[in-house]
Amino acid sequence: MSAFASRWVESPAHVRELGGGLPAGFRAAGVAAGLKASGRPDLGLLVSDAPETVSAARFTRSGVQAGPVLATRERCDLAALRAVVVNSGNANASIGAQGHADACAMQRRAGAALGVPEAAVAVASTGVIGVPLPMAVVEAGIDAAAATLAPDDDAALSAAIMTTDAFEKRAALAVELPAGTVRLSAQAKGAGMIQPSFATMLCFVETDAALAAETADLLLGVCVRRSFDRISVDGQLSTNDTAVLLASGASGVRVVPESDDELRLGEALDALLRRLALLIVRDGEGARRVGRVVVRGGAGEVVEEVARSVANSPLVKTALGGGDPNWGRIAQAIGAALPGAAPLPFDVAIEGMALCAGGTPVPHDAAALARAVARDEVEYEIGLPGAGAETEVFFSDLGHEYVRINGEYTT
Amino acid sequence: MSAFASRWVESPAHVRELGGGLPAGFRAAGVAAGLKASGRPDLGLLVSDAPETVSAARFTRSGVQAGPVLATRERCDLAALRAVVVNSGNANASIGAQGHADACAMQRRAGAALGVPEAAVAVASTGVIGVPLPMAVVEAGIDAAAATLAPDDDAALSAAIMTTDAFEKRAALAVELPAGTVRLSAQAKGAGMIQPSFATMLCFVETDAALAAETADLLLGVCVRRSFDRISVDGQLSTNDTAVLLASGASGVRVVPESDDELRLGEALDALLRRLALLIVRDGEGARRVGRVVVRGGAGEVVEEVARSVANSPLVKTALGGGDPNWGRIAQAIGAALPGAAPLPFDVAIEGMALCAGGTPVPHDAAALARAVARDEVEYEIGLPGAGAETEVFFSDLGHEYVRINGEYTT
Repeated sequence: MSAFASRWVESPAHVRELGGGLPAGFRAAGVAAGLKASGRPDLGLLVSDAPETVSAARFTRSGVQAGPVLATRERCDLAALRAVVVNSGNANASIGAQGHADACAMQRRAGAALGVPEAAVAVASTGVIGVPLPMAVVEAGIDAAAATLAPDDDAALSAAIMTTDAFEKRAALAVELPAGTVRLSAQAKGAGMIQPSFATMLCFVETDAALAAETADLLLGVCVRRSFDRISVDGQLSTNDTAVLLASGASGVRVVPESDDELRLGEALDALLRRLALLIVRDGEGARRVGRVVVRGGAGEVVEEVARSVANSPLVKTALGGGDPNWGRIAQAIGAALPGAAPLPFDVAIEGMALCAGGTPVPHDAAALARAVARDEVEYEIGLPGAGAETEVFFSDLGHEYVRINGEYTT
Repeated sequence: MSAFASRWVESPAHVRELGGGLPAGFRAAGVAAGLKASGRPDLGLLVSDAPETVSAARFTRSGVQAGPVLATRERCDLAALRAVVVNSGNANASIGAQGHADACAMQRRAGAALGVPEAAVAVASTGVIGVPLPMAVVEAGIDAAAATLAPDDDAALSAAIMTTDAFEKRAALAVELPAGTVRLSAQAKGAGMIQPSFATMLCFVETDAALAAETADLLLGVCVRRSFDRISVDGQLSTNDTAVLLASGASGVRVVPESDDELRLGEALDALLRRLALLIVRDGEGARRVGRVVVRGGAGEVVEEVARSVANSPLVKTALGGGDPNWGRIAQAIGAALPGAAPLPFDVAIEGMALCAGGTPVPHDAAALARAVARDEVEYEIGLPGAGAETEVFFSDLGHEYVRINGEYTT
């Protein structure tokens, strides 16, 4: 993960990156159960051994929700989760009652294997939609994974949740709080079917800080909104998005609500999730470049609409991929988001160079612009009438690899 | 045009396709003025010589409207247009006051060259956004085109409006009405930046029927809603979309409102514009296949949202391109359009084969499905709860050619 640095993510001074591993109180595993034809790992377990573990969770807002999402939301105490069972290679989505039943069976089997109440086991799946899970394979995989649980095997869990991901997305941090040092780690997956709520993404976050459930919920909620909620690979909202935070308390360091400890832990979690979110965009099913669009104006809804319109425009995304400084496509995407607004005085800047002011082109150094848009990260700034509202969306380019991956990724 | 037939467009028995040409009273021209680096034709003129010509027009709903769109809307009597001046290679969009002034200058020059009042000249442009028009080139081109106007040169006009179009989109019809035979012709362009209002598309329609202005407006409005308004190549709304209908009356055949003549002429115009719209989708900047999604349910807004979500999903579009029968991506796109609707009992059928009923997979013949999705036209049917509302959207696949064209199409 340290291989990827972005100017768009701060590195708080009180946070130190570790090579890997899990905070105190956690064990993880990942095995190849046989769901993936490739024979790669496809079933993972995560468990906190501390009975007093608190948790928080966020899910997709899609109107079509996968069996594991529905089962976890309905059957779990989301503030008292202790474990996660997850598979890749099959989303267990759009399977109707059978999908729900299969998710419950995964929960039951994992609870038994881990010695944890069913209601404390979150279930997550990712992969192909519309194909029933082979449950004998899944249940044997759960048992096999439980037999290999290890305190430092975040890498195995991380590998078991990948689908079209080109690289793993995990990190482990040591966070110095006034009350003491805690650890924070996360494993995420996601490359396509990414946006707008958060993504076809899964993210499991562990800390050994001792948190109130309200604190866990607050921190996860705020940080998800600033990370997975602000990325788009292809404008596609998944049926399976799930983010879970587990806090074991095993460090003995208590984080009191509205304390400096809470603020510092929040900063660390924010940096962690924004980095992972940017890794998802960077992976982006063949992406070569990452764009950030910042929109400022007078109305929150309007800046959001415009930012999404630009980030999801295939014309903007192919221009980003081709290193084409074609700001006219930005103008097109702005207009498309705001029917009836003409004539609209808008500003466009790319990499800090003003290209359009009040709807009129601005003379600029074309060669410098061409160099700027050929870099790995490209920033687009849009100004709309009014002031007070601002938003950002990170997005990947659209290139041949996306087409190849998605034209060939078959049921 | 006869080379392209679609099962989705009816061929009314009273309509006969002609090889080309314009209805009585019209002249057209197209020349290479020098706006395109390729040296291809880029400036066109269309004029009706009958002073009593009536007309109707429709424009993009984008909040960023090009100079020619604003100038035409503000300065013309849209019911009494007699001419069109159009350029390709430059959209004259996002140029601010200069863009508006340049569009007015085109109008003035064309009016003078054609002997038609300025207010009767519609202006249209298509091409790159954000680059000022070289007006000396444009004005010389207008004069050159005026010198070559010919009663049968719809082909020249058609060529002059192409940008990334791989083939021309024009047709000429003879329409037998109870009151007599009239002619109907149209020249359209469009390949990318296509949706949702109608498209980056231009379409000029001519008839020698004698129409009331209200009839022209009614027929064009209804037929645009059923054609250019129902297509999507890439979900991108253009700044320049323009459709103009001119009726010269030169046939002497009068079409009275609410008559059989009006109905028959409407059927012919409907077939004509739907064919041209499908040609735009088929062109679709590298498209290989055309999809039609039909959504039925209880609420008009909901079926529209779902149809657009499916038609614009890059995952659905790459699957269409790859001949992948992955209906899970349809499920994903449905859910994305309907946040909060879970659990949602929906039906999916592809090419008449039921794949999902009430949100649950249906056993089907996978080999037959694979054959069906490999054909040139693929139909997707979606059922949502309720009844009474239905819509359709035609869309292209997303393939390597789209990426190549748009990654390389530079300002």
